[in-house]
Order: sequence, then structure tokens, then C-alpha cells
Amino acid sequence: MDRIIFIVCDGLADRPIKELQGKTPLEGAKKTNLDSLAQRGIVGLVHTIDRGVRPGSDVAHLALFGYNPKVYYTGRGIFEAIGIGMDLRPGDIALRGNFATIDKKHKIIDRRAGRIDNTEELVAALNKINKIEGIKCLFKKGTGHRVGVILRGSGLSAKVSDVDPHIVGRNVSLSKPLEKDKKSAFTATIINQLTQKTHEILSAHKFNTKRIKSNLKPANILLTRGASKAMHILSFKERYDLKALCIAGAGLYKGIARALGMDIIEVAGATGKPDSDISKKIQKAIQMLPKYDFIFIHIKGADSLAEDGDFLGKKKFIEKIDAALKPLTRLEDTLIVLTADHTTSSTLRLHTADPVPVLISGYDIHTDDVLSFTEHDAYKGRLGHLRGLDLMPTILDYLGRAPLYGA
Amino acid sequence: MDRIIFIVCDGLADRPIKELQGKTPLEGAKKTNLDSLAQRGIVGLVHTIDRGVRPGSDVAHLALFGYNPKVYYTGRGIFEAIGIGMDLRPGDIALRGNFATIDKKHKIIDRRAGRIDNTEELVAALNKINKIEGIKCLFKKGTGHRVGVILRGSGLSAKVSDVDPHIVGRNVSLSKPLEKDKKSAFTATIINQLTQKTHEILSAHKFNTKRIKSNLKPANILLTRGASKAMHILSFKERYDLKALCIAGAGLYKGIARALGMDIIEVAGATGKPDSDISKKIQKAIQMLPKYDFIFIHIKGADSLAEDGDFLGKKKFIEKIDAALKPLTRLEDTLIVLTADHTTSSTLRLHTADPVPVLISGYDIHTDDVLSFTEHDAYKGRLGHLRGLDLMPTILDYLGRAPLYGA
Repeated sequence: MDRIIFIVCDGLADRPIKELQGKTPLEGAKKTNLDSLAQRGIVGLVHTIDRGVRPGSDVAHLALFGYNPKVYYTGRGIFEAIGIGMDLRPGDIALRGNFATIDKKHKIIDRRAGRIDNTEELVAALNKINKIEGIKCLFKKGTGHRVGVILRGSGLSAKVSDVDPHIVGRNVSLSKPLEKDKKSAFTATIINQLTQKTHEILSAHKFNTKRIKSNLKPANILLTRGASKAMHILSFKERYDLKALCIAGAGLYKGIARALGMDIIEVAGATGKPDSDISKKIQKAIQMLPKYDFIFIHIKGADSLAEDGDFLGKKKFIEKIDAALKPLTRLEDTLIVLTADHTTSSTLRLHTADPVPVLISGYDIHTDDVLSFTEHDAYKGRLGHLRGLDLMPTILDYLGRAPLYGA
Repeated sequence: MDRIIFIVCDGLADRPIKELQGKTPLEGAKKTNLDSLAQRGIVGLVHTIDRGVRPGSDVAHLALFGYNPKVYYTGRGIFEAIGIGMDLRPGDIALRGNFATIDKKHKIIDRRAGRIDNTEELVAALNKINKIEGIKCLFKKGTGHRVGVILRGSGLSAKVSDVDPHIVGRNVSLSKPLEKDKKSAFTATIINQLTQKTHEILSAHKFNTKRIKSNLKPANILLTRGASKAMHILSFKERYDLKALCIAGAGLYKGIARALGMDIIEVAGATGKPDSDISKKIQKAIQMLPKYDFIFIHIKGADSLAEDGDFLGKKKFIEKIDAALKPLTRLEDTLIVLTADHTTSSTLRLHTADPVPVLISGYDIHTDDVLSFTEHDAYKGRLGHLRGLDLMPTILDYLGRAPLYGA
């Protein structure tokens, strides 16, 4: 056994729901294949960061991949920028940008400019800014209203506050240094000048005059947030000697995978949404197995449905995942690992820190007595409680690839 | 209850084996006494270093004895040197030496000089070197082709590379400093001069001229490796106020025990091999109980058999261990602790990081519902998952000897 398929079902775990007779969506779902994988292996509960720490998807994935977020996480911006194909260099500051609509008094009318899309022209106009006080400013279109922003040059810091106040009706904020050093102060002035320039350029752009004529909200400013500094990260190949592939729909996960040096393959129908074609992703993984040691599959839908409070939809989606997993129950020489990055409570409609079930399944590994892959039963498994950072070492051990300590 | 018998069965744990109907050698073995001990106590799973860290026997034993290897482990050389009875002083550099055979171009023909033994004369010749640049060089015969080497004097470092290239057909390596300080550079020059001197002395020795005449490979060089620095270690007595005894066949374990200030007693028939007389070791332990608080028994065979892929032999050997344990099931006032230092997979033929079962058994301690001492059932025990370093504090607590924190 020398290959791994590593599946993260985003927000898979949940809490007991009254309308499901006190079951979670996972517990209520028909899930023959998940149970069969659990029966062929061992299960446990993962605290992706630590007990009681509510994880974002970004830090949770870093931890599951064995990269301590306390070392490697400097903000979401870098992974989103990498995810949309921007080339980051160590020292770059990456920010998440939104095209937004403000009024004449700089009050925010719409943080997404009417969920604008087709913003190629606007992004091209922003790229003409080129430099501010010697700092290179780079922009790339993300999905919908999103824009990746990179600041490149010497003397930059990520310790600056957001321009985006995150609340409609508020005024655009000034970026402020969050530490007392020169670099943070300098970076904040760059960002504030940049924000002003985007407002000037975008307000005057004919694309927006057309929108106003069509009674659409103009994208007349770029609101940035989540400044983060790019650092050197050892790749999966350098760190684990594993040739890794990522199969994901949503940009963030591709970004994390790319930052860790995984190859990325696009699968038609992998949308990162509940309509995603999961079967195609699994089949593609099996097809690519001979070429890779580690295949990461990200499945997003359960998280989004729970954030919408749609626990019935989540249950159905889990059944769709289960059906797609069938071919994996017959693989002989591949370790199957399946878990979630965090719990998403359909009643609270947010990520919670409740530990998530994990299964490690393969033909020559230990077994335990757990027959069903659920939040309820996972604590009875052989793996016990583990932290996200413990997972990769455990997997590498099963492959006989863990490094020897001592002699 | 105020005494402890602490048994480490080296490499006891394993993985499920197809030919044993998916059982491990321990699960497949007839083991009434192990089960009886488990029933009278509590069990759990020990990660001797940490989850997913594949331990060598040396670091694993340090951790099981409560000595953090990250603090106390500087390489295997010191424990081997102590194990063969060399007196180490803090600051000494210890190395493992092999009598080996090289050709005229310094290419290695045999790293063990035809598994030479009876090397007393050669070792005596080496001890005539006495000093190199003021550094005292001490040699002592180990088993077979092995020699303990100590460098003593000021300005030494253990940060030097091996002279032994570990591969037959390669040339003898030059020792190189692994750090940029003067001490490492100085130590490397001493080791290189020493290697040259051993080659000169041994090549000219009549013992070797005789060997060549008899068509045997001459021991014409001493290859050293594993430089490690002796440090001050608090003894078992100083640290735990326990008078400790070691009963072991193999040298390394005696070395670790001696480094921790344990007394060592030799038992006839304790060979450190699968033919070892385990019953005699157990009987000797019981006989010595009135004189000691803590008796460490090391049983090596299971590890060696698994490293040879002999899972049936390992199963039989476990049955032999079990039979020898019978007298321990009747002891009333002694805590019995039994575990392994690591898993040795008979299929992979190497140490793995899979956690190992542990039992703590005695007449007035808690119990749990685990009836059988196996890899499969241990996770269901009261102890849950613990690290090697957690074991000694747990044991000391059962003896009412754990230090009080707070008031």
C-alpha cells in the first residue's frame, strides 16, 4: 500500500437536529459506502486546530496537511491569490479585493457591486496603476466580484487593517498600521492611496457609466482586506516525498494545494457547489492514481448547505457523496482517508469547533469495532481524539514512510 | 503496593497479517497470562514518542522511562559504550566502532571483517594509541566485530560525520564537521587521524597476518559512526527515589539502564535473542524484588523475529513470553507494567509508529472492561492514548509517589 486518496468533505459534521429526530445529517443519511470504508479501517475524532478552536477552512486544511497554521498561516489573501493563478513571491503582500459600490460620501451601498461579474475590463484598468511609491500593484480577476491583489516591493508588512469595513452603510475605512514599525505605517499609506486611485479610475470608467444607465450598481471602488505576507513553504514533495494532486472546485482549496506544490487538475462539472459532479472527481482520482502518491479531493457542498441552514439538503448531499465513493471501497492498494475540515452547524449556520469524524481505511491496517461513520460513533474508534496536525504523521506511518527517530 | 516490575517486550506489537487471518502475532497467540494481567488492571495505547513518529529502540526506552529524548538523546554511541561497561564522563564523545576489512585503495570489502570475534588482542593494540593531540582515545571490545570508542579531552564536539559510509564497495569516508565551530572541526581531525592510526596498527598486527594466511578477512581498520556526547543524566534514584535494577540480554538496553543509574544483573541464558530464557529472567526479578523498587526486564526476541518477517516465530515467541509471565499473575503487592517500545511490522520488516498496547496491573488499581491484551482491544482501555513520557508519572501515581503540585 503506497498511495493515498485524501478526501475532505467541507463542513461534513453537524449537530443533532430536532427535525431529524436528534440525528445529524450524516447520521440520518443512507451511507453504505462510508460505513463500509469505516469497517475496513479505523476511525476517530479530529480537532483540526485544537479543542474549542473554531477553524476557518483555510487553517483547517493547512493543519490536516500537516502544516502548522501558527507557522504557515499569515492570512487568507495569499491562498486566494495563488488559487486564481497569481504568482506570489516571498515577501509579497496579498489582499482579497471586492468590487463594491459607494455613494458620494464614501458610504458603502453594496459590498459586491450587485454581484457583478465579467469585470475583465475593470481589472485591466486597475493594472494600469502599475506602481505607487515604488510598490508594484498587481490585480487579477477572481470569481464574480472578487479580485486578487498583490503588493510587491521592499519595506512592506501585512500588519495593516482592512479598508473594507465588512458592513453595508458604513464608510470606507482607512487602512491603519496594526504594529508600530515603519513597514506597517508605509504599507497602510500605500493601501489608502491605492483605494483612492481605484475609486478615481473606476468611477470614470465607461463600463460603469453603462451600468448606471442600465440601472445597475457601479463597481466604483475596490475594497481590500485580509493582508497577508507570502512566505516560503516546503512543498509536499520536499516535505513528505509525495507527488501530490488536487481535485477541487472552489478557488481557496486550489490555492492552498498550489501553495503546497500540488498539481491541480480541473474536472468538468466540479463546481465547488452542491450541484458538483462528485462521481467524476472520484473517477478522475482513481484514473490519476498511477501518477501520484497523494490525491487530495475537496468536496464543498455540505458546508454551504449547512451555512444556509438547509440540513435536509445537506443530508441529501451526503448521500450523493456516499454514492460517489463506491469505487473506493474496492481499491486494494490505496489508503483512503476521509474527514471534514470543521463542523458546520445547520442550526447555528456557522463553523463550530466540535471535532469531526475521520476514517483511515485500507486492506492491511488495524481495524476497530466501529461499524458506522458518524459523529456519534467516531469517538469509539481506535484513533481516539487527535489534532489535525497528527493526521499526516499517522498516514505516513501507515505507508511505512514516517521518518525514524533514534536508531 | 510499592514495587514495580516494568517489562518491555521489544517490537511486541505488529500489524494485521493476512496469513494469520487478519490477526497480529499477539492477537493470534495463546496468552492466558497476558490476558489475566490485563483483566486485573488497565490497558491503553502508547505512542512512545508521538503520533506518527517511528521510534528507534533507544529513544523509545528513554521516553518510557520518563526521560525526554529531545533532552537526553544525543546519539546511540553513549548508550552502547555504557552498555559494554565503559565509564563515560560528561563531555566525552562516544562512537560506535566496527572492525572492518578494506582493500589497498581504502575501498570497503566487509563492514564486519567476516563477522570477526575474539578481538581482545586487536583492542589491546588500539588502546596503545593512548592520545592524539592531547585527546585520550579509549577502546573496549563489544560483541562480535563491535568496539566501543571514547574520545576524552577538552574542545570536543559530537557534530561530526561518520567515517563508516555504511555501504560495502564505497571508500572509507573522511569525518567532516557538521557545524561551523572550532570544536567540530577539531574533533573531525582527531577522528580522521585515529582512523588512519587504526589502519596502520591493525594492518601490521600478527592477528591479521594469521587471518590472511587462513583465508579469513583481516580486521584492518576501525570504522566509527554515531558520535554522541555524554551528558549528566539524573539517575532513577535521584529523579524518582526508586532503587532500580535492569535484567536484559542485549547491550543497548543495559547501556540505557546503566546511564539511568540502574543496577544490572546478568541472568544465565538471557541472550537478547529468541532463544533467551525468559522464565529465568522473570524468576530472577521476583527473587530480587525485596531489594529493588523498580525492576526493568527487557525481552528482545519479538523485534528480531519481526524484522526477519517471521510472524509465526514471533507468535510462538509471544507464547513463550506469556508462559514465563505466569508467576507474575500471582504477585500481590507489585505493580506489573508491560508494553513495547514500538511496533515492528512483520510485513514491512521495520519499526512503525503504530501505538503499542500497554497494561498496568495490580491488586488495588482501577480496572476496565478489556479482557484481552491485543493491539485491537487496547484502544478500548481506561488509559486511552498516551505518550511514552506519560507512563512513568502514571505509574508513580499508582504507587502514591507522584510529586504534589500546588497545595
